[in-house]
Amino acid sequence: MNISVIGAGTCSDKIYSIAEEVGKLIAQRGAVLITGGLGGVMEAASKGANEAGGTTIGILPGFSNDDANPYVTIPVTTGLSHARNIIVVRSADAVIAVAGEYGTLSEIAIALKLGKPVINIESWDTIEGVVVVNSPEEAVSKAWELAGNHNQ
Amino acid sequence: MNISVIGAGTCSDKIYSIAEEVGKLIAQRGAVLITGGLGGVMEAASKGANEAGGTTIGILPGFSNDDANPYVTIPVTTGLSHARNIIVVRSADAVIAVAGEYGTLSEIAIALKLGKPVINIESWDTIEGVVVVNSPEEAVSKAWELAGNHNQ
Amino acid sequence: MNISVIGAGTCSDKIYSIAEEVGKLIAQRGAVLITGGLGGVMEAASKGANEAGGTTIGILPGFSNDDANPYVTIPVTTGLSHARNIIVVRSADAVIAVAGEYGTLSEIAIALKLGKPVINIESWDTIEGVVVVNSPEEAVSKAWELAGNHNQ
Amino acid sequence: MNISVIGAGTCSDKIYSIAEEVGKLIAQRGAVLITGGLGGVMEAASKGANEAGGTTIGILPGFSNDDANPYVTIPVTTGLSHARNIIVVRSADAVIAVAGEYGTLSEIAIALKLGKPVINIESWDTIEGVVVVNSPEEAVSKAWELAGNHNQ
Repeated sequence: MNISVIGAGTCSDKIYSIAEEVGKLIAQRGAVLITGGLGGVMEAASKGANEAGGTTIGILPGFSNDDANPYVTIPVTTGLSHARNIIVVRSADAVIAVAGEYGTLSEIAIALKLGKPVINIESWDTIEGVVVVNSPEEAVSKAWELAGNHNQ
Repeated sequence: MNISVIGAGTCSDKIYSIAEEVGKLIAQRGAVLITGGLGGVMEAASKGANEAGGTTIGILPGFSNDDANPYVTIPVTTGLSHARNIIVVRSADAVIAVAGEYGTLSEIAIALKLGKPVINIESWDTIEGVVVVNSPEEAVSKAWELAGNHNQ
Repeated sequence: MNISVIGAGTCSDKIYSIAEEVGKLIAQRGAVLITGGLGGVMEAASKGANEAGGTTIGILPGFSNDDANPYVTIPVTTGLSHARNIIVVRSADAVIAVAGEYGTLSEIAIALKLGKPVINIESWDTIEGVVVVNSPEEAVSKAWELAGNHNQ
Repeated sequence: MNISVIGAGTCSDKIYSIAEEVGKLIAQRGAVLITGGLGGVMEAASKGANEAGGTTIGILPGFSNDDANPYVTIPVTTGLSHARNIIVVRSADAVIAVAGEYGTLSEIAIALKLGKPVINIESWDTIEGVVVVNSPEEAVSKAWELAGNHNQ
């Protein structure tokens, strides 16, 4: 199972902690973590998953595997700039958005368009179709519940 | 100047009429119209522009130029599915959203991320950063005003 | 009808003249010229077509319409780097390669994969499946002949 | 380190065996295998690597993780059709081509354009810049030698 965590490339310490915990819980449940591979929420989730022994894929927008944050175990370099957002979402059985700005909103919208479960923590919570949760535990629990239904 | 009109592939008669008028006004002002090349709002805007003598580019998600609606004068076929949305937005000096669903929301979000002017008619009007207008005339007038500022 | 001309971003005067003549002949026959929008062969073909009154589309790899050479009448900006090569080829009814390096070879290969007619002038002429010609007139004549068959 | 193996989606038993051995050797040396995730050479290399305990990424052209061959441990679904070829190549420290047709040629060309080492076994061996080898052992040995230089 692939779970994608999306969010901005820079974030507050509080959001970083939340994303790190989300990453840890994803790895502990045995799924692969997919992110956009850069900083902020992407780094935090990768750190949490990596330090829990998980595999972390970074789908990079630029031209070099070296752009990946240090917690990405496998970089996938696209050279596609923002179009890589769609790959992050398409490859996921469920998407967890932690905070985030316009780039994150574009990923939420594509995920909903594709019929993927989207779980939000302190993110674009007013968009119809997202599932709003209040903790990393709840986010990951919902992701498994909804990805399971989605796959059947 | 390129102006992109975005919206869903199916729409009500009322929205079709609005999009058609937007397309007509864009062509009358001498800009190239860019759309996603399919039906609904994309077709309506292309029809309005085409019948006013304008050039209409359709950035198609599929595999054949034949997918374009009949009012597209120049098809550009990407084979990239939803990733073509980003091209529709990147190529624009301003973006006008007419109604629309999740696909349109993804384009609005990318446009805002890229710093493009986004003018909405009956669309995702609560997203911070969009300019909400109430008529085709106002939409096109705003597009020119903001694209001009954007280009300077 | 869309005809794409592909080739390197820098070229000799001799190749520039050939590509310019190819562009002129494409415009004179009433087709839209598609190129990658940058310098060298892309610029030369655009110049020839533009000065003959044709429409020239530049499918740009970068982030700004301003990257287009001055003879592109309609820039389409992808932000997709080399992945834009595939759009140049997919949108064409026939592809004419003028000289060119590895980027051009990738486009020739994709065009052949997609079953598009590929006409070469002083290009990767040993690749099985390309049609090798010796003059701009012959190239354009072949493009029309093969695009016609291709479309039926 | 990421090593990509490229080749056609259908192949002879002989080519399948070669690709399987290449995949096995890549995994035994501890690198991640990247392929296009489908059948033929892609499946064979994934099988070899997977059965040797390696991680295998499949960069899929279609719309579902389910398109991956059964030996892909982590599917990455792009929805980008042939444009995914570029990701397969960009993500690699070295590329090994086993036989292959026009799609493979496009990947070889892009890899050479990007300055990546390209090692060919019974593939497009006349293209200037590729390193032609005669066995899986030699291919993998060369990949490590050249990727190492490439990374310094």
